[in-house]
Amino acid sequence: MLIKEKIAQAVGILQEYSIDCWIIFTRESQINGDPVLPFLVPAPLTWHSALIITADGDTRAIVGSYDRQTLKDIGAYDEVVGYVEGIKKPLLEYLQKKNPKTIAINYSKESETCDGLTHGMYLTLVEYLGEIGFEQRLLSAENIVSALRQRKTSIELEYIQEAIWYTERIFKGVSRFISPGRTEEEIAQYIRNEVESAKLEFAWDQKTCPSVFSGPETAGAHYNPTARKVEPGHILNIDLGLKVNGYCSDLQRTFYVLRKDETAVPPEVRKGFDTIVETIEKARQVMKPGVQGIEIDRIAREYIVSNGYNEFPHALGHQVGRYAHDGTALLGPPWEKYAHRPYHPLEEGMVFTLEPRLTVEGYGVATVENMVVVTATGAEYISTPQTQLILIKK
Amino acid sequence: MLIKEKIAQAVGILQEYSIDCWIIFTRESQINGDPVLPFLVPAPLTWHSALIITADGDTRAIVGSYDRQTLKDIGAYDEVVGYVEGIKKPLLEYLQKKNPKTIAINYSKESETCDGLTHGMYLTLVEYLGEIGFEQRLLSAENIVSALRQRKTSIELEYIQEAIWYTERIFKGVSRFISPGRTEEEIAQYIRNEVESAKLEFAWDQKTCPSVFSGPETAGAHYNPTARKVEPGHILNIDLGLKVNGYCSDLQRTFYVLRKDETAVPPEVRKGFDTIVETIEKARQVMKPGVQGIEIDRIAREYIVSNGYNEFPHALGHQVGRYAHDGTALLGPPWEKYAHRPYHPLEEGMVFTLEPRLTVEGYGVATVENMVVVTATGAEYISTPQTQLILIKK
Repeated sequence: MLIKEKIAQAVGILQEYSIDCWIIFTRESQINGDPVLPFLVPAPLTWHSALIITADGDTRAIVGSYDRQTLKDIGAYDEVVGYVEGIKKPLLEYLQKKNPKTIAINYSKESETCDGLTHGMYLTLVEYLGEIGFEQRLLSAENIVSALRQRKTSIELEYIQEAIWYTERIFKGVSRFISPGRTEEEIAQYIRNEVESAKLEFAWDQKTCPSVFSGPETAGAHYNPTARKVEPGHILNIDLGLKVNGYCSDLQRTFYVLRKDETAVPPEVRKGFDTIVETIEKARQVMKPGVQGIEIDRIAREYIVSNGYNEFPHALGHQVGRYAHDGTALLGPPWEKYAHRPYHPLEEGMVFTLEPRLTVEGYGVATVENMVVVTATGAEYISTPQTQLILIKK
Repeated sequence: MLIKEKIAQAVGILQEYSIDCWIIFTRESQINGDPVLPFLVPAPLTWHSALIITADGDTRAIVGSYDRQTLKDIGAYDEVVGYVEGIKKPLLEYLQKKNPKTIAINYSKESETCDGLTHGMYLTLVEYLGEIGFEQRLLSAENIVSALRQRKTSIELEYIQEAIWYTERIFKGVSRFISPGRTEEEIAQYIRNEVESAKLEFAWDQKTCPSVFSGPETAGAHYNPTARKVEPGHILNIDLGLKVNGYCSDLQRTFYVLRKDETAVPPEVRKGFDTIVETIEKARQVMKPGVQGIEIDRIAREYIVSNGYNEFPHALGHQVGRYAHDGTALLGPPWEKYAHRPYHPLEEGMVFTLEPRLTVEGYGVATVENMVVVTATGAEYISTPQTQLILIKK
C-alpha cells in the first residue's frame, strides 16, 4: 500500500539527513491541509493531530478520538493514539520519552509543498514544546518533504502515466473537434465533456483547466477560455492536466489552423514551433541526477533567445506529482519568487514538465509541454513528445 | 456580486476593529489555500500574491502577471498589479506609501479558518517588511476573518438554505430505502448515488459523508460506513452535508428499526431521542447575540447528564458556511483543543449546528443535528427540526 511505502521511505530520508524526528502537526485538514498528508493518511484529520516519524523507525499518530479507528485500520503506524480533550499531554509524553535532538516541521520559505504548517499551528507547537524545553530543537522539514515528494515509487509513476494516457487520448479527440469558427470556450467545453463522461478528474482549477488560446491576441497563460473564435492563420494551444488515483498529468499541445490557400505551414510558424521542439529536446538531453535546474532552464532560455525570440516569462519546467505544480526543485531562472528552487540538484525519480514558450508575431503562441522522468543516467519522456504541429485543415 | 459585497464588508470590519490594513499573503493557493480566499478572489492564485484591504477603503491585489486579468475582470479591486520576477518591490512600495500603523495577517492559534498563512509565508513577509521597518506592525487578523465568515449576507444564507433543502430531500428518500438486512455501506451508496445523479457536491470528505451508524456496536462519529447490517431494534443515524454554490449544510437524522412484534418505540429509545430533541430546543431558546457559546453548550450538556446519560464527547454545535465546520465562535465546552472559541459572543448572522448525542444502551446512538441562524433577538431554525424518530417498519 502506497502510504506504508511512503512512510518507510520517510524513515530512510530521516536517516539520510540525520534528523531524529519529523512531526506533521495539523488540524481540520480539509480546511488548511498540509499538502504532505495524502502520502501519510487515508482520510482528513479533524482535531489537532500529530503524525510522528522517527529515524529509528518509530511511527505514531496522535489524533482526535473520532479519527483513531480510520488510522488504525490502515496498519501503517506502530501506534495510533486517540484523545478527547487535547493533544498536548500525549504529544509531550511521547516526545519526552523519545527525546529527539532535532524535530523537523513542515515550513519552507521557498517551497509551498513543504510549507504545510500554518503560522498559528507553529505558535501552538512552540508553546507546547516550550513546556518541556524542546522548542529550540525545531527545524524545517523541507529536505524531508522534498525528497518524499520527488522520489517517485513505481506505483506513483504508474499513476502519473495513467493520467498522461488519458490526457493524450483527449488531445487526439480534440484535434478533430477544432475548426475555424469554434470559440476557445466551445473547445474547452468539448474537453470538459470528454473528461466528465470518462469520469476523470482535472489536475487543477477548471477555470483554467483546460486552457485554450487561439491566435495572436490571446490573454496569455492562466486565463480562462474566451468567446474568441478560431480563425485560419491562428496558432492555437491547449493546456490540460488530469488526475488519476491522486496523481497528475500536465501537458500542452500546439495546433496550426491552415488558411484556405495554404498547403504548408508558413515558415515563421514552422520556425517558432521547431524552436520549441528543439529547446525541449536540448533540455532533456542535459538532464540527469546532480545537475541543477537553473542550468537546464538557462540552456533552454538561451536557445530561445538565440533564435530571435523573447525569453519565456516563467520557469522551463516544474515537477509533477500529486499536484500539477509539485515539489521543490525547479527548472527555473534565478528570479526572486523562485528563491533557491532552481539550485536544487536533480534526483532519480523526479518527474518534470518541459514547457518553453514563444510568440510568433501575427500568429499566436507556440508552446509544447512534455513530461520526463529523471533516471539514474539521464531523463526519459513519459509523455509522447509532440514533434509536429497538429494541422487543422477545415 | 458576492466578492464585492464581502470586500466592502471587510472594509467596515477593519474600521470597527481599528485596524489600518489587512494583507492576505498566499501562493499556489490550490496547494496551501488560505481558507478566506474564496470570499475575495474568483480563482486560485499561483505565485506569491497579496490582497490588501485598508480601513480607508483602498483595495489592491498584487499578483503574478498571469493571474492579473482574471482579477481585473471581476472589478472588485481598485487596482490589480501584475509582476513577473517578484512581489517584494510592488508590495513594499505600496505599503510605504500607505504607511499603515497596523497590518493584520491571517494567523490564529484557536481558529483554523483564520489561520491561512503558512509559517514559511509568514517568515517571508517578516523578512520583506523588515526591510522597511514595518515588521513590528503585524498582528493577527482573527477578528477580521471571524467577522467576515460569520456575518452571513442574505445571498450566503440563501445558498446555505438551498444546500439544506437538497439534504432534507435526500433524507426523505433514504428513509424509504433503509430496511433490515441492508448494510451501512449500502445505505451510504444509495445516498452517494442520489447526490451524484442530482449533480450535487458533498460538504466534506466522502469517506465520512455520508456517515451511517446502525445499532449498539457502531464505531462512533467520523468513521466510514461498514458492512454492518441494519437489524430490528437498531437505532440508526445518518450524518450528511451538501455544498451548493460553495456553501454547506450539515445535518443528522435518527431512525429506529421496529422489531417484528413492536408497534411502538421502546420507552428507553423514546426517552433518549426525546432528550436529544428537548436539548436542542432548550439550547436554541437561549441563543442570541452577546451570549457566549460555552453557556449554550453547558445548558445542553447539563440537560443530557441530568437525564442520566454521559455527556457528548464533542461541542454542542459549530458554525457552518463555506465549510461544514466553519468560523471561530463555537458552542463548546472549555476543553484545551477548543481554546477560547467557546467564549466568543454570538452575533447576528451566525449559522450554527445543534447536535447533542447520547447512547441508548443496547440500541445505538441517538443524535439529531439541526441548523439555526442567530437573529437580532434570538435564533431560528433554518433546517426543518427533527422532532419524531423516523420509524423503519419493514
